[in-house]
Amino acid sequence: MNQTICYKENVYIKSGFSAVGPKESQGPLGEYFDVIIENDKNKKTYELSESDMQLCAIKGAMLKGNLSEDDINLILSGDLVNELIVSSFASKEFDIPFMGLYNACATFGEALILGASFISSQLMNNVICSSSSHFSTVERQFRYPLELGTQPTPTCQWTVTGSGCTILSIDKSNIYIDCATIGKVIDMGIKDPNNMGAAMAPAAHDTLVSHFKDTNRDTDYYDYIFTGDLGGFGSDILRELMLKSGYKMGDNYYDCGREIFAEEKTIQGGSGAGCSNVVFNSYIMNLLNQKSGVKVLFAPTGALLSKVSSLQGESIPCICHALSITS
Amino acid sequence: MNQTICYKENVYIKSGFSAVGPKESQGPLGEYFDVIIENDKNKKTYELSESDMQLCAIKGAMLKGNLSEDDINLILSGDLVNELIVSSFASKEFDIPFMGLYNACATFGEALILGASFISSQLMNNVICSSSSHFSTVERQFRYPLELGTQPTPTCQWTVTGSGCTILSIDKSNIYIDCATIGKVIDMGIKDPNNMGAAMAPAAHDTLVSHFKDTNRDTDYYDYIFTGDLGGFGSDILRELMLKSGYKMGDNYYDCGREIFAEEKTIQGGSGAGCSNVVFNSYIMNLLNQKSGVKVLFAPTGALLSKVSSLQGESIPCICHALSITS
Repeated sequence: MNQTICYKENVYIKSGFSAVGPKESQGPLGEYFDVIIENDKNKKTYELSESDMQLCAIKGAMLKGNLSEDDINLILSGDLVNELIVSSFASKEFDIPFMGLYNACATFGEALILGASFISSQLMNNVICSSSSHFSTVERQFRYPLELGTQPTPTCQWTVTGSGCTILSIDKSNIYIDCATIGKVIDMGIKDPNNMGAAMAPAAHDTLVSHFKDTNRDTDYYDYIFTGDLGGFGSDILRELMLKSGYKMGDNYYDCGREIFAEEKTIQGGSGAGCSNVVFNSYIMNLLNQKSGVKVLFAPTGALLSKVSSLQGESIPCICHALSITS
Repeated sequence: MNQTICYKENVYIKSGFSAVGPKESQGPLGEYFDVIIENDKNKKTYELSESDMQLCAIKGAMLKGNLSEDDINLILSGDLVNELIVSSFASKEFDIPFMGLYNACATFGEALILGASFISSQLMNNVICSSSSHFSTVERQFRYPLELGTQPTPTCQWTVTGSGCTILSIDKSNIYIDCATIGKVIDMGIKDPNNMGAAMAPAAHDTLVSHFKDTNRDTDYYDYIFTGDLGGFGSDILRELMLKSGYKMGDNYYDCGREIFAEEKTIQGGSGAGCSNVVFNSYIMNLLNQKSGVKVLFAPTGALLSKVSSLQGESIPCICHALSITS
């Protein structure tokens, strides 16, 4: 069965907004973010600080799109904190219906695909697609207490502190989503939660190969292919896996996790449900806005582990969703 | 803005399947469940046991609907375990795209609404909507270690051990979904995680009132109204709140949590992402199958708290989604 949905009506991107922390602003994409939140621990808990960042991104996208709460049918949102409290607490500030999503760092891709289905079917006019992550909420939940100051392993990634929001709309704009490939859960047996790039690369490979087969496209159909967040090591693995399947990932291939940070301390690069989201709502949107006819394949990846599953000795199931976006 | 989606094409229910543990089988709905899993801790961890139960429900619904993996476009699934590992681990057994959802005990309602949008827009042919919960995974995650043997408070509910699966389809059948109301996040300030019925009742009230207003229907339009899982105390609160808004909930009103258990030990009744799901895929489906023209309003409710948010002193944001289902 074909994994790729071709939307019957084009789904337009009304607006996008990105809010990040200080470290992200110092990276190579710093100039593209809408807002830098210098104090990223501005609330009484880390979780509420992240929630506040998601609020900022949603309000920013609404402002950019000139939309009020009344114009919006649905918030689709998720984060990495247990039970999605970050997204729930952000959404309770709006008089807008809410659905929580979880596909780890691929959650933003999931939101875009689901939102696009509501728009394409003309069941809704405007849908908010949002996600976030925060170094301080995620690190202690998935790994160790921050105060321990544990050293990262050589294959580690660094959780991005940031939130982004894209509003999908039936209103025509210069950027639209034409099709999307929904990923399957792929588990190649990797058990090291500090090597999520290696765990996720086979999921990205599976979805990208399905996408190219389903659409009869090749890698050079796209001006830019962005996976998110395989990191340095993971995206190298993906290149090899794709080549073995007959697809050469050329100079048009980037990884959101690899691109976002400058500091060596971040090892293999960024990760987190906010990572590919803020890269999309800043740098990638900028590429799409530069001229018409730019074709982007945006493929966020997620590692569907938990602290419990890791401690129980289970391997890491992974997923990747891909969207074809054109200006 | 109208919160209710009216599907353009009717969305049909191809099949439903329910698998429960021993305690659920001894309740008043025992005879309606498809499978009783006598040993509900049959795997090396509680989480894998719950995953196995979800596998059983999905495979059961596929078998009943005479569908193979190739026929199915998507699994929409969620559970209460952190990072949805139960659903991810179940979904990796299938060669079918997967999206994880989280709206606590309202997750199954969220799955039906999203699945229906894909079917109604003819982007997909068959969609699996699934969820689960397990007393042993949930109790220790949200409350206390099982070994502590803590006594429940008088407003407590008991997590249902069970999983259900509904397959939505473009193929005409005798049961269809015509419209759905997506809930907003409602938080009235309740902070007691042992009184989730009181926390969730205002969310159910908000969604039901919106549903009746949007559709110009009243409570007596439906033969049966099922909320899930407000429990005894919560559903009494809902009756009062609805009456204050001018809607009398008559003898046609039931709550899935209130109905499922017989034992006094379960206090206010059942809860969990599997609760309203297994009641729907057994007793409610049976009501719908008895004759044509039966109208059901199915409104699963969810408390969007986490252990962390409770310990941080936060209140409990809640949600309720409602679906109108007719035979």
